[in-house]
Amino acid sequence: MTTSTAGARPDEVRRHNRTAVLRRLHVGGPCTRAALATELGLNRSTIKALVDGLASIGLVVEKLPAQRSGAGRPSLLVLPQPHAAVVLAVDVRVEQVAIAMVGIGGEILGRHSWNLHGKARRPDEVLTHIVESSRLLADELSVDMVGVGVSVPGVVRRSDGLVHEAPNLHWTDVPLGDRLSAVFRLPVQVGNDAELGALAEHVRGAARTASDIVYISADVGVGGGVISDGAPLRGAGGYIGEIGHMVVRPDGRACYCGCQGCWETEVGEAALCRAMALPEGSPRGALVAELRSLASHPDSVAHRLGEFMDWLALGLVNVVNMLAPELVVLGDLFTALPAQVVERVSAIVRERSLVSRAVGGTRVVSSPLGRDAKLVGAAELAFEPILDNV
Amino acid sequence: MTTSTAGARPDEVRRHNRTAVLRRLHVGGPCTRAALATELGLNRSTIKALVDGLASIGLVVEKLPAQRSGAGRPSLLVLPQPHAAVVLAVDVRVEQVAIAMVGIGGEILGRHSWNLHGKARRPDEVLTHIVESSRLLADELSVDMVGVGVSVPGVVRRSDGLVHEAPNLHWTDVPLGDRLSAVFRLPVQVGNDAELGALAEHVRGAARTASDIVYISADVGVGGGVISDGAPLRGAGGYIGEIGHMVVRPDGRACYCGCQGCWETEVGEAALCRAMALPEGSPRGALVAELRSLASHPDSVAHRLGEFMDWLALGLVNVVNMLAPELVVLGDLFTALPAQVVERVSAIVRERSLVSRAVGGTRVVSSPLGRDAKLVGAAELAFEPILDNV
Repeated sequence: MTTSTAGARPDEVRRHNRTAVLRRLHVGGPCTRAALATELGLNRSTIKALVDGLASIGLVVEKLPAQRSGAGRPSLLVLPQPHAAVVLAVDVRVEQVAIAMVGIGGEILGRHSWNLHGKARRPDEVLTHIVESSRLLADELSVDMVGVGVSVPGVVRRSDGLVHEAPNLHWTDVPLGDRLSAVFRLPVQVGNDAELGALAEHVRGAARTASDIVYISADVGVGGGVISDGAPLRGAGGYIGEIGHMVVRPDGRACYCGCQGCWETEVGEAALCRAMALPEGSPRGALVAELRSLASHPDSVAHRLGEFMDWLALGLVNVVNMLAPELVVLGDLFTALPAQVVERVSAIVRERSLVSRAVGGTRVVSSPLGRDAKLVGAAELAFEPILDNV
Repeated sequence: MTTSTAGARPDEVRRHNRTAVLRRLHVGGPCTRAALATELGLNRSTIKALVDGLASIGLVVEKLPAQRSGAGRPSLLVLPQPHAAVVLAVDVRVEQVAIAMVGIGGEILGRHSWNLHGKARRPDEVLTHIVESSRLLADELSVDMVGVGVSVPGVVRRSDGLVHEAPNLHWTDVPLGDRLSAVFRLPVQVGNDAELGALAEHVRGAARTASDIVYISADVGVGGGVISDGAPLRGAGGYIGEIGHMVVRPDGRACYCGCQGCWETEVGEAALCRAMALPEGSPRGALVAELRSLASHPDSVAHRLGEFMDWLALGLVNVVNMLAPELVVLGDLFTALPAQVVERVSAIVRERSLVSRAVGGTRVVSSPLGRDAKLVGAAELAFEPILDNV
């Protein structure tokens, strides 16, 4: 069901088709015209006109493939031209900011990052540093940016990029989108980090062939991004949910959000530090090293992480029962967990979740994109309006 | 972002527009051609051709309005013709089945219901009774059915209407959709009851102007249906989540699903019977009467329903934090709760949910459709393919 009542006009159809071709090349890589026609269900003359149009503005070129296959004349390949449309991707984390210039087709053309401590975490400081660093990087690479995508660990309003609350950064109501677009004079998209992790896994990671997934982001806080039927799930006002603030343990620790026993308080970075007998606030590197060391001591996993696994599994069962995904991707800090932890919680989910049984067994996997997921997702977010309005 | 790569052809555009016109009339009621043109963003000649086409197959007529407004010649109204497209709506509940014939435009043309006890709850018996009763009802009303929609309290595969598990009916893997379509030789859509409740509230109930809502269904079990950005939220394989099996109380009562302390076990019918000091399995009427009697004893609400409200609110906070809806509609058995209970849990949600604060305060209301919600939703589900393929 949809109550959409909008009509479609011919010019919209043309734009839709041009976007479909460019999106196919951006996501799937080089491809022949014949394959484009088949995949998109359009006839060859339409594809020719669309490709010629994209080539005339430099977004694609047609080339002979480097390797010949078969005996006949090889077909020309249509290739996206990375430098023809470059976006700035920014991943604001609690401890660090990373930026990258990403060309159409998804290639990272250059990157830079810096740590955040104390005052450097203030919105003004972060903003200034982003602007200066990205201009330097763009000069270095001799590229022009056509759009900007930013990942922030907080509650973000999609329409204008207002960061309503990013508690671990101590940001409240920061008009990040408006301020960046005023400086850059470019379309700026700001998204929640977990949402962008989900987008990245869907476009270029573990979930490329899946259409219903949940990405769990574990940095200082815990968040979740959902792709439902191939598109990101957002709620009212474009806000996305905060899976980390699902209460899993009503008598658990107090959370800053006003609840007790949020998932974040039971399985976030601080909980992992407690489990590994490290002081809370230990450097991320120390925690990751401890977690990775468990891989060679499989017998101590249950002892160290038994309680952690219980709460991780309980939250995952709830997530799967509520959203019916086929795949859950554990991202960021959780990619440091020993494989046997992922296997164990995956087994619990399949065993206990009524909905996992219905959908044929939801898989739980570790993110292959690791720490780059949010940066990749921010780039994809920036490309959306570019692709839609080409 | 969408990775959709399909092209659009002119015949698809025409069908899309025809569907848009009919859907507008079906959902919003009679309307002038000029208003259709404005609302749908199509020009008048296109609207004329579309309306003429729909009139030629009898789905709409054009009439002078009964009441004249203004001095000029009144504009003709385009009206859907209820008898021109009639669907069978079926609401299978744990204790009762209700059926209705619903005409395009949403008018209930006739209805019938019967109770389910013991053997009558077996799939074969229910199926036979549905077929016989609906044929009788169609004869009585002199209508031809063009489609069928069925609401079932369980985990349903949307693609073919397989009821994977309807625990409170003791149904497992019942091919309800296939069997009904074999008998009726019509398109049959089967949906989860909570999903259809959400659909009904969205099209004709409390959520007509909202695009992000959660409908909570409380019958014997508890379920949830979600409308996200105007469309139903479904997961892998078309299954929807089972919000009632979110664990809210890890040390709570054992649930048949294999978990402990599911929301359903803490706030479902049995929990309400315990709260009201009625034996579990008391007749629904007795429970509803007890709940309604609290309205005149406001002082005893906290005493009777204090613990119930705590668990209802905790689950609602989780639902709002995960899905970021603007509105939560409490349906079915929950419509018997005293208004002060709804107000109290609504206040807790706004106070405790980080996400509710972000979206400007999620409202929690009681369903205006009450017991008819699933029947209305089943009719809308049946109309979907009819409207799409007109």
